[in-house]
Amino acid sequence: MLEVSMSGLVRFGVSIDSQLMNKFDSLIERKGYKTRSEAIRDLIRERLVEEEWEGGEEDTVGTITIVYNHHTRELDHALTDMQHKSFHQIISALHVHLDAHNCLEVLVVKGKSREIKKIADRLIGTRGVKHGKLTMTTTGKELV
Amino acid sequence: MLEVSMSGLVRFGVSIDSQLMNKFDSLIERKGYKTRSEAIRDLIRERLVEEEWEGGEEDTVGTITIVYNHHTRELDHALTDMQHKSFHQIISALHVHLDAHNCLEVLVVKGKSREIKKIADRLIGTRGVKHGKLTMTTTGKELV
Amino acid sequence: MLEVSMSGLVRFGVSIDSQLMNKFDSLIERKGYKTRSEAIRDLIRERLVEEEWEGGEEDTVGTITIVYNHHTRELDHALTDMQHKSFHQIISALHVHLDAHNCLEVLVVKGKSREIKKIADRLIGTRGVKHGKLTMTTTGKELV
Amino acid sequence: MLEVSMSGLVRFGVSIDSQLMNKFDSLIERKGYKTRSEAIRDLIRERLVEEEWEGGEEDTVGTITIVYNHHTRELDHALTDMQHKSFHQIISALHVHLDAHNCLEVLVVKGKSREIKKIADRLIGTRGVKHGKLTMTTTGKELV
Repeated sequence: MLEVSMSGLVRFGVSIDSQLMNKFDSLIERKGYKTRSEAIRDLIRERLVEEEWEGGEEDTVGTITIVYNHHTRELDHALTDMQHKSFHQIISALHVHLDAHNCLEVLVVKGKSREIKKIADRLIGTRGVKHGKLTMTTTGKELV
Repeated sequence: MLEVSMSGLVRFGVSIDSQLMNKFDSLIERKGYKTRSEAIRDLIRERLVEEEWEGGEEDTVGTITIVYNHHTRELDHALTDMQHKSFHQIISALHVHLDAHNCLEVLVVKGKSREIKKIADRLIGTRGVKHGKLTMTTTGKELV
Repeated sequence: MLEVSMSGLVRFGVSIDSQLMNKFDSLIERKGYKTRSEAIRDLIRERLVEEEWEGGEEDTVGTITIVYNHHTRELDHALTDMQHKSFHQIISALHVHLDAHNCLEVLVVKGKSREIKKIADRLIGTRGVKHGKLTMTTTGKELV
Repeated sequence: MLEVSMSGLVRFGVSIDSQLMNKFDSLIERKGYKTRSEAIRDLIRERLVEEEWEGGEEDTVGTITIVYNHHTRELDHALTDMQHKSFHQIISALHVHLDAHNCLEVLVVKGKSREIKKIADRLIGTRGVKHGKLTMTTTGKELV
């Protein structure tokens, strides 16, 4: 059913109604995909990443985005403190000045999904943070 | 690239890394899928339904689930009123007595996604509704 | 800080910037809320229901919505079979004929969130189901 | 109903069942909130940001997170190209080497939500991107 090539690539067939195929083809064209295979692989990888985060115990990667008013002192301390306490998990951070008052900070965090969620909760709950969100992504290791 | 059979079925090939394939195969086995094609078609249809709801102007179907305390009079009136005003859209309703106080009601609504969202907002915002959610699904017509 | 009345109602104060207040007031008016308290209670309950489903072991309620082609025999059997096997969980079902070919079915399921998710996976993964979704709601018991 | 202070702060009262209050209090303690007001403001702001993104025409901010294999040449070009073409929107980027093969890149993008979604679609659809996600946040301007 599967042919395996030297490079580790395999190929499998999908049977599908032609009407459904047409609708999918026009969707992926709008989204800028070059091939159907790439679009299908993306759907598969997205589903696998969702699963990876369900359990809580796998090593994974997330980004935490927060928008805040940089005049809030309490937050500055909390952020620095958090980043030092969780320095094993927080591997990088990007700071952007949105305007005279508002900053955006993105933290890249690696660890068990359960731990990453906890760090996100703390940061998002800090006074002065106007909006915060955890984006669940992946180490990429398991997703060739 | 596509072979079209009499029945309107087509078949296309997907090339994919064998490691990614294995992970997907074990996921779909856990989820109870019998074939890869069925799993792939489900991913495709799910994405298409998401798109269908983005625009606002297509005819589609949703279910509105609300849990409420049936002692709240105001709600009873609101629900009946709403169902009569929007009777073109609300095509059916199921009522379940969860316990002595709590009821669950599911409404099946057909119409433009923009209108369905509005009906859901009204119902969910009524006093006495403890929890409400709109589930976006499809007429099925476009998804063979 | 909290005054408790005879009826179990309490009242607490929220301090908030007036600009943020105005934006929220115009949002809840659009959504049809009659009072700020009701809108706030809804935000609170929604967050609590999300948490209820995270753990997996609490008793809760969900609705499973599926759209399918009723000509698919395999599905009819699967649905009936599933509903009998899981009859402790599935407490009610609503069937709607969308058109000559398409049916919508909503099942109301009560049980541990982990079990409800499993039933939903099985049904959504059955051949012939064009679209399926699990809506996570609540028994209402804990959410006065 | 509202007292407005010099600083633009107002205060409003919420009436709520004591049982619901208790459940919310224990949730926000777990999440690390210091006061109820802060937790309520966060729920309000989150809802407002959701609305901001629905319309498509408001100026807003998003972060696009992608994980990819840096050996994929096609992607390097696409990324650079995209960042130059959309340089008005893409205001900053953070690059993290996850391991010998995998990179994570976060782009901070400002513009109409419709345009930001388009940029995200293009990037996520590029061959070599293993996982990509758009996080919808805010300029912070409207959310004091």
